[in-house]
Amino acid sequence: MSEHRSTPPSAASTTASDGGPQALLELLGLASYTELATFGLLASRSVDAPDLATRQTLAEAADQALGRQLRLLELASGHGVGAVDLMTPFDGSLTDFDARTQPGSWWEGLLKGAVGHGVAADLCTTLARGLPDGDAAAVLAVVEDATRADTTLRLLTDAAARDDVLASRLALWGRRVVGEALTLVQALLTRHPRLADLARSAAPGDAPAAAGDVPSWLLAALTAEHTRRMDRIGLAA
Amino acid sequence: MSEHRSTPPSAASTTASDGGPQALLELLGLASYTELATFGLLASRSVDAPDLATRQTLAEAADQALGRQLRLLELASGHGVGAVDLMTPFDGSLTDFDARTQPGSWWEGLLKGAVGHGVAADLCTTLARGLPDGDAAAVLAVVEDATRADTTLRLLTDAAARDDVLASRLALWGRRVVGEALTLVQALLTRHPRLADLARSAAPGDAPAAAGDVPSWLLAALTAEHTRRMDRIGLAA
Repeated sequence: MSEHRSTPPSAASTTASDGGPQALLELLGLASYTELATFGLLASRSVDAPDLATRQTLAEAADQALGRQLRLLELASGHGVGAVDLMTPFDGSLTDFDARTQPGSWWEGLLKGAVGHGVAADLCTTLARGLPDGDAAAVLAVVEDATRADTTLRLLTDAAARDDVLASRLALWGRRVVGEALTLVQALLTRHPRLADLARSAAPGDAPAAAGDVPSWLLAALTAEHTRRMDRIGLAA
Repeated sequence: MSEHRSTPPSAASTTASDGGPQALLELLGLASYTELATFGLLASRSVDAPDLATRQTLAEAADQALGRQLRLLELASGHGVGAVDLMTPFDGSLTDFDARTQPGSWWEGLLKGAVGHGVAADLCTTLARGLPDGDAAAVLAVVEDATRADTTLRLLTDAAARDDVLASRLALWGRRVVGEALTLVQALLTRHPRLADLARSAAPGDAPAAAGDVPSWLLAALTAEHTRRMDRIGLAA
């Protein structure tokens, strides 16, 4: 059972197919837990929405988040792992993030959901690319759907276009939320080394090799996607 | 345009097929608005659920409520009426009920959802029976589904069986919530005479004819269904 004799150390646990379905299951756990969180955030903003049309729109957006989560849970259930076992390793992992990003208004709550969910979806998309091809395709079919869900972004875009003061407040708030989200990503990858391995497997060819740490190209890529999203909303990030 | 000369007053607007799709649309408005409210109540209890398994269960129950609502909205859209126009006549109609039934605990919030949704589903089921056969079948296919949705009831049953003190508190609370719900039913039927017409069309053969008022057999039937539901949970109503 001498691991280091049969494989050169530089290849250990950095290739996509290592460890059987464990990395896949850990990514499914992260993705389904964050979709459940998104469901909760959107549903809560539906409950206290300013008008009936917005209430309906956000209820449907919450529903789509849960629909994606149920598809992810089904993938895990194909490997014999139930919803609760799958998500338990991530239970509570958003508590600090939530405490540091208590929204001061309904719009801030909505933007928090959009930013948080955007970063989570981009992270899961990137990590999925580190999986073996078949697994990667199955996960990407769901999580890439999430990056296209733009109802919330449209509500924010309209509001920012109507109200300059709100727009500049939200731009500031978005910077704060994304900062906390990136801190959370680093904590998650440190606590879940299999996810960090996926990130290394997914690294673009020109990324500097960095064992152990959260790769800086990943944080840069997540930041760039966030900036693009905020630009599309009309909030300079 | 003398209405009372062409039809005897006793038959005016008391038969199911009167008024084209207006009665159907009003019932669809009521049913989809109450399903949206149920979505909100269940989703909120998911967000602050005591553990991950319950959080997931209630998110899925909320999802099913919204699924039923979307099917009701589709029926209305077949008559060219969109979600917001359909529900607007009922917007705000639960405000008084909500203010009078502020839950004192998570369990009271969950029971409020179960009782309120139970009464709403039973009401819509009864009113649907006053529609012409084809319309009745289409609405019943959705709202009877709701009366079978029992995830929330199962959570309450387990809790009541585990904890006598909680059970007797919840039994009291259930009585208060159903009292307010029946008051709300009367207010709704008074404010929406087409729904009251549906109730009269749906009356069982031996029910006393009562023009204008909310029929007493309807309140008795809703109360009886509620009592059965509370008995099943293990909470004497």
